Parts: sequence; structure tokens; C-alpha cells
Amino acid sequence: MTLTDIVQRNDTALGRTFDTVVIFLIMYLILTLCVSTLPNLPESAEFYLEISDYIVFALFTIEYVPRVVTAPNKRKYIFSFFGILDLIALLPFYLSLGIGLEAARVFRLFAFIQILRLSKYSSATRRFHLALIKAKEELVLVIVAMLLFLSSAGIYFFEHEAQPEAFESVFHSMWWSIATLSGVGYGDVVPVTPGGRFFTGVVMVCSLAVVAVPAGIMASALSRVSSEDRNDSND
Amino acid sequence: MTLTDIVQRNDTALGRTFDTVVIFLIMYLILTLCVSTLPNLPESAEFYLEISDYIVFALFTIEYVPRVVTAPNKRKYIFSFFGILDLIALLPFYLSLGIGLEAARVFRLFAFIQILRLSKYSSATRRFHLALIKAKEELVLVIVAMLLFLSSAGIYFFEHEAQPEAFESVFHSMWWSIATLSGVGYGDVVPVTPGGRFFTGVVMVCSLAVVAVPAGIMASALSRVSSEDRNDSND
Amino acid sequence: MTLTDIVQRNDTALGRTFDTVVIFLIMYLILTLCVSTLPNLPESAEFYLEISDYIVFALFTIEYVPRVVTAPNKRKYIFSFFGILDLIALLPFYLSLGIGLEAARVFRLFAFIQILRLSKYSSATRRFHLALIKAKEELVLVIVAMLLFLSSAGIYFFEHEAQPEAFESVFHSMWWSIATLSGVGYGDVVPVTPGGRFFTGVVMVCSLAVVAVPAGIMASALSRVSSEDRNDSND
Amino acid sequence: MTLTDIVQRNDTALGRTFDTVVIFLIMYLILTLCVSTLPNLPESAEFYLEISDYIVFALFTIEYVPRVVTAPNKRKYIFSFFGILDLIALLPFYLSLGIGLEAARVFRLFAFIQILRLSKYSSATRRFHLALIKAKEELVLVIVAMLLFLSSAGIYFFEHEAQPEAFESVFHSMWWSIATLSGVGYGDVVPVTPGGRFFTGVVMVCSLAVVAVPAGIMASALSRVSSEDRNDSND
Repeated sequence: MTLTDIVQRNDTALGRTFDTVVIFLIMYLILTLCVSTLPNLPESAEFYLEISDYIVFALFTIEYVPRVVTAPNKRKYIFSFFGILDLIALLPFYLSLGIGLEAARVFRLFAFIQILRLSKYSSATRRFHLALIKAKEELVLVIVAMLLFLSSAGIYFFEHEAQPEAFESVFHSMWWSIATLSGVGYGDVVPVTPGGRFFTGVVMVCSLAVVAVPAGIMASALSRVSSEDRNDSND
Repeated sequence: MTLTDIVQRNDTALGRTFDTVVIFLIMYLILTLCVSTLPNLPESAEFYLEISDYIVFALFTIEYVPRVVTAPNKRKYIFSFFGILDLIALLPFYLSLGIGLEAARVFRLFAFIQILRLSKYSSATRRFHLALIKAKEELVLVIVAMLLFLSSAGIYFFEHEAQPEAFESVFHSMWWSIATLSGVGYGDVVPVTPGGRFFTGVVMVCSLAVVAVPAGIMASALSRVSSEDRNDSND
Repeated sequence: MTLTDIVQRNDTALGRTFDTVVIFLIMYLILTLCVSTLPNLPESAEFYLEISDYIVFALFTIEYVPRVVTAPNKRKYIFSFFGILDLIALLPFYLSLGIGLEAARVFRLFAFIQILRLSKYSSATRRFHLALIKAKEELVLVIVAMLLFLSSAGIYFFEHEAQPEAFESVFHSMWWSIATLSGVGYGDVVPVTPGGRFFTGVVMVCSLAVVAVPAGIMASALSRVSSEDRNDSND
Repeated sequence: MTLTDIVQRNDTALGRTFDTVVIFLIMYLILTLCVSTLPNLPESAEFYLEISDYIVFALFTIEYVPRVVTAPNKRKYIFSFFGILDLIALLPFYLSLGIGLEAARVFRLFAFIQILRLSKYSSATRRFHLALIKAKEELVLVIVAMLLFLSSAGIYFFEHEAQPEAFESVFHSMWWSIATLSGVGYGDVVPVTPGGRFFTGVVMVCSLAVVAVPAGIMASALSRVSSEDRNDSND
């Protein structure tokens, strides 16, 4: 079993284990990023989050090297979408090392870009298990969850300073994300900064796709079932 | 006519009567659960609701026994979805007997789970009358009504204590349910507790399906009709 | 040319004139009903509206008689949907004659039921001009306009007393109808009475159909066009 | 290379350059119109905007002449939809020359009608590049952008005087447009004048098409892909 089998393939036991560990690390990082925005964290928790950040990004850096080494075409991988994403997702952490602690915290939010790497694994597992699981429904759920986290982190970044109570942390911002992504728009929490409002426009365009696509799929599936029912009852 | 014919089948007169009685009892229970959350109920009404609760759950307990006894495969029935549901739906009542009256009232709200048992009857009648009634439209209405009651009871459970005026009873909470399930979201009544907000997220995901599916069905039906019209006018 | 040709048919010049006059009278009545809810009307205007009401309903009463007389099957017409509707639409006016002026005004709002009679003419013209005009799009517009007027009149009836400023007249209530029917739901004008809230639920169910059906039709039409485009470009 | 080749055709290098310049000028004009509504503009900026307006409309006037001269059928072009639009789009500027400066500013907003001329170029390029670019998706984006600008300028025109803070400039009004066109409707910024509310109704009807059409296209595209996937996995 070579390194290539572990890193590049997902039809071997070790390859799947490797992918599972990376997925787990990304999800753990997103969670700690959200937790680190919570107000009134005890100092010990902040220290723990700091340390775990260092460890996760060290592992991600280690992960990047064999990916390049084992790629069939190194140059092509480095300049591919996921190759650039793998590199860019490391940048926020390394750039935040040089600057002060307070700025670093805001800057580190950009590590949320790691969430986009999950889409690679989602499509990879999709192709592999195609016959076993309902791939499309799973993909929709992954996209919805990613959109929920990305929009919450983004609006927190834009609005936290202007409205610290409504957007207290990434978790608190999720309430705004739920109301906006579903198109209900209660209006109890509303962005007020130009940046936050522009971001809202972008989120809404995405939300229309997220709301409409599963709805359209269900509707067309149900109408297909009903026309089959009618054919059956005609026999 | 054996007990099996009454309990297990719905193509005999007695079997249909049995099902109708159970459906009526579940609907009566849901109604009394909603009524019991109304403020300023006279003491006599509370006493009556209490007694009727006892009777209904006694009848449900009696109903469970022949269901198990007459099942073709007892073990399989007990561990089937509707078998477990039949049992779980009895639990809130029996667990509430031991604890104090105030806690019992909140606890009894879980008896709303009985509403899920209606879906069994809905699908049963559906298969039987397939040629007679427009089954799909009826099913959509049953699901919408169930969602309206379940979301109203749920948000009442989460938000009643924090906002006793807006969520005064399950009936009052229906106004929030209507505005949320339809996606209009006026924003005059909005959940404020973390539990209520999380529950809102779950309701919204369900609402998208409920709103989109009938809409999609109508749209595809109308476009089918219109293309037939065009074919007719070409003749 | 007999009376039957005028009243029952719409493929003769006089028959079409007769239908046009009835449609014009109904629309005129709906307009005066809306105008009569405007606040601070001069007394001369109120007197004029009163008189014109008497004349229109007298004409509607005269219209009912030849409809029954010329029907091929009198009993069948009287108990048909549109036969009962023709009669019921006259009732609010005659019942309002006996009671006081203030009550009469509210009661007369029920004359809005006349708007439902328009659907008969809409479908009648539809069948006749099928090849000439885009029947379906016209029907959707007629339904949307009817829904806008009916929901505005309904919410005015339920909410005018509780919120005289937001629901000042049927025209003012249209702002609420627009925001609700489109599903945008700003929340600046919201019903507060139980009757108004229940009515809102009914309107929302209708609005979903109105919003979804034209949307679905356009979407399926565009996707059909696009697939034809693709076939063309393949040639 | 004759004048006709430049003005009427878009399959020559000079013809495409001519079209690109006109498109650029229209977009530049829309931008300056939006900028000119910004509050507290320095006097020098206002002077610059004034001068650039004169130049752009002078160029548009010059453009109109060869369009008429080189048209295969002059009369037909002048009375065609785009011929009338080309002329009407010049009117607001010339009419505003005679009246005072303050009124001229509001009046000049009607120059927004120039945005409709973009649709001609959009469809022209569409037919030409059909095989090269995804024409339909581009068209949807162009329509959405046009609707966003038109609704923002329209609501600014109706509501600026009544609510100068919420609708401070065309750019500020975009926040209302985003919330309304997407159907979210937060309700933090709401029109209060009868004109603004009527305009909102018109915008909402358009928004339903804009929201629903891309959604429907995506849904049908995804369901087509999924049914192909299923066919593939059956092989």
C-alpha cells in the first residue's frame, strides 16, 4: 500500500480513513471557529481553542505536501480548483500569525473557506456510493448546511461591530441566516451596514437556489409518482 | 367475524368503524390538548378535560392489546414504525401520572405524538379508495393540517414561558404557524428562545416542502392541461 | 332573434352586448362598494352611491328572471352553481333594506360575492375566443385581480374596526393584500383580530396557488423553449 | 465598409465596437444618474455629472440619426418597439432643459428608460454567440440587474420625499429592492405613499417571475440530470 493509495483513492480502507480524518478535522475547525466568537469565553477555553487551531493547521499543512507529491500531474493539481483551494485555505492562519491577537481573531474567520473543501469529499463519496445512498438528497443537505454556516459567519463578520447584541456570535447569527435563507424574513434582525446589506443580497441569490431546487425536485418527483399511479389504476 | 377482521382489516364494515373510532379519538385528544392550554379556563372545564384524557388513554391502551394479539407476526409488529409509535404515544400520559399537576400539563403536550398515528390511517384509506377520491390532494391537506397543529404545539411548548402574551395557547400560536409555514413571515410574533429558534428552523424546512409541493403539482398539472389544449386546437 | 339568443348565447351580437353590460355592471358595483368604504366622503357622494346601488341591484333582479325563463331546464339551472350564485348575490342587498343604515353598509360588503359571477363570463369568453387570445394568461390575471379585491374587502370587513388607520378603506387594505398575496410580508400592517387572522390563513393558501402557478408555467415554458433551442443548435 | 455595416450589423468588427460603445454609454449614464441622487455631493461633482449628461445625450442624439438613415425600412423602424424606445429615451433630457434645476433632477430620473434599450443588445448578442456562451443564464442575470436598478430608481422617485432617510439615494434604495425582489421582505424599509405602494405591487409581480424562473430552470435541470444519472447506473 503506497502513499498514493491513501491520499488519492477512496476505494481502499486506508484511503477512506484518510478522507474521514480530513473531513473530521475541517468540521472540528469550523466548530471551533464558531465557538471562538462566543462572548464571555473563559480564558482557559480561549487558550485551548488557540492551541487546537495551531494543531489543525499544522495537520492541514502536512496534508498538502503528499497531495502534491502523489498527484499524477503535479502542476495541473496545484493550479486546479481544489489545488488552489487547498493552498488558499491555509493562508488566513499563516497570515494571522504575524499580526496582533484582536485582529487575528477577525482574520481567522476567513478560515471558513475550509468549508468549501468539504464539497470535494461530498462529490467523491457521491460517485463511490452512487447505488447505495440517495446521493442527490445528501448533496442538497450538505450544500444547505454549508450555506447556513457560511452566511452566519459572513454576516457575523460584517455586522458584529455595528449590532453586537443581534449578531453576538456565529451561533447567534444563525437565527438571521435561517429566516433569510428560507425567505421568511421576520425582520427582527436586519443588517444595517453597507457591507452586511451587500452580503445579504449575495446570500439571497444563493438561498433562492437552495429553497427552489429541493422544492422543485420534490414536486417533479411527486408528479412523476402520481402519473405512474394513474397509469397503474388504468390497467 | 373475528377480532382480526375488526382490528387489522379496513375492507369490512366493522373494521372501518373501528378505524373511524380511533381516528375520532385521536382528533378529540388533539383538540382537548389545544383547549387545555387556553388561559383562564373555568375549573369545571379543567376537571372535564382531565377526566376525558383518562378515558381516551384508557381506550388507547385497550386498543394496543388486540393490535399485538391479532398481528400476523407479533414481534415484527411491535418493532415496526407504527408499532413503536403506538406504544410511545401512550408513554407521555402514563409518565405524567406520577408527577405534579403543573409539570404534567407541559409533559402531556408530548401526547401530540398521537397525531403522527393519523398518517397510518390516511395511507390506509388512500390505498383502499384510490379510484374513488383524489388521494394525493387529500394527503397533502392532511399533512398541512398535521404540520399546522404540530408546529403550533411545538412553538407553544418552547415560547409560552418567555412570551406568554404572543403564545398564549396552542390556538394563539397558530397565527405564528400560519405566517411561518406560508413563508410570509410578518415578524409581529417571533421566537426569542434558542429552543424556539431551532424549532423554527426545523419547521421552515418542513414548510418549504409543504409550500413547494402543492404549488409544483398545480403548476405541472396546469401546464399539462395547457399543452393538451394546444393539441386539441390544432386538430 | 328571441330572448334566449340574447341571454343564453354569446355567439350573437346582442348576446355579447348583454354579457358586456352585465360584466360592466358587476365591475361598477365592486368599484362603488370599494369607494363607499372611503372615509370622509361628502354627503352628496354617499347619496349618489346609495342610489346607484338601488339601480344596479334592480337591474340584476330583472336579469335573473329571463335567465330562469330561458334556461333549457329551469330546475337544473336554479340549483346549478351559477344559478344559486345569481340568487345569493342578490340577497345581501335585499336583506340590507330592512335594517339600519350603519349596519347596512357593513352588510352590503357581502355584495362582493358578485365578483365570483365574473368567473362565468371569463370561462365563457375563453371557450369562444380560444384561438384568438392567450386564454390561460388572461384567466390567471382575472383570478389574481379577483383575489386582490376579495382579500382586500375581506380584511377590511374583519380589521376595519380594530385598526381603522391601517385598514381605512378597501383601497387602503390593498396594500396589505399585495404584501400578503406576493408572500413578501413586510409586517407593517398585520391583522390582530381572530377573524382577520383566520381569514389571512385562507388568503395565504390561495396566494400560494396564485404565486406558484404563473411562476411554474413561466418556468416550464422557458425550459421547453431552451430545450428546443438546444435541439436547433444541434442541427 | 459602409455606415450600415457599423450601425445595423453585429457580425463585423466595427459593428461590435459600435454596439459596445453604446452599451458602455448607457451603463455610464445609469451610473451617473444613481450617483447624482447621492446626498451631500461636492459642487464640482455635480458640475461634472451635469456636463457628462450633456455629452452622453448629445452622443445618443447623434446615434439616432444613422439608425434611421441606414434602416432598410425607415418608417417601420421609427414605429417599431426599439425605434420608439430610442426616441422616447431622449425625451426626458430635452424636456428637462427648459425647466428649473431642482425639477430637472427628478425629471432626469426618467432617463432610466435607457436601461430598457440594453435588452436589444442582450438579445442581439444572444443570437450571435448562441453556441459560445450559456445565453439563457446570461439573459436572466441581465434581467435581474435591470430590475434591481429600475425598481431602486422607481422607489427612490416615489418615496424619497416622504422618507428621505430610508430612500436617501438610488444606491440606498437598493436595500429595499433586494429585500422585495427576493420576496424576503424584512419590513425595516417600507413604502408609505400611495404611488410607492402601487409601484411596489408592480415590482412584486415582476419579482415573482424573476425569482421563480431561474429557480424553475435550475430545478428542472437538476431533475433531468438526476434521471440521466439513474439511467446511467442502470446500464
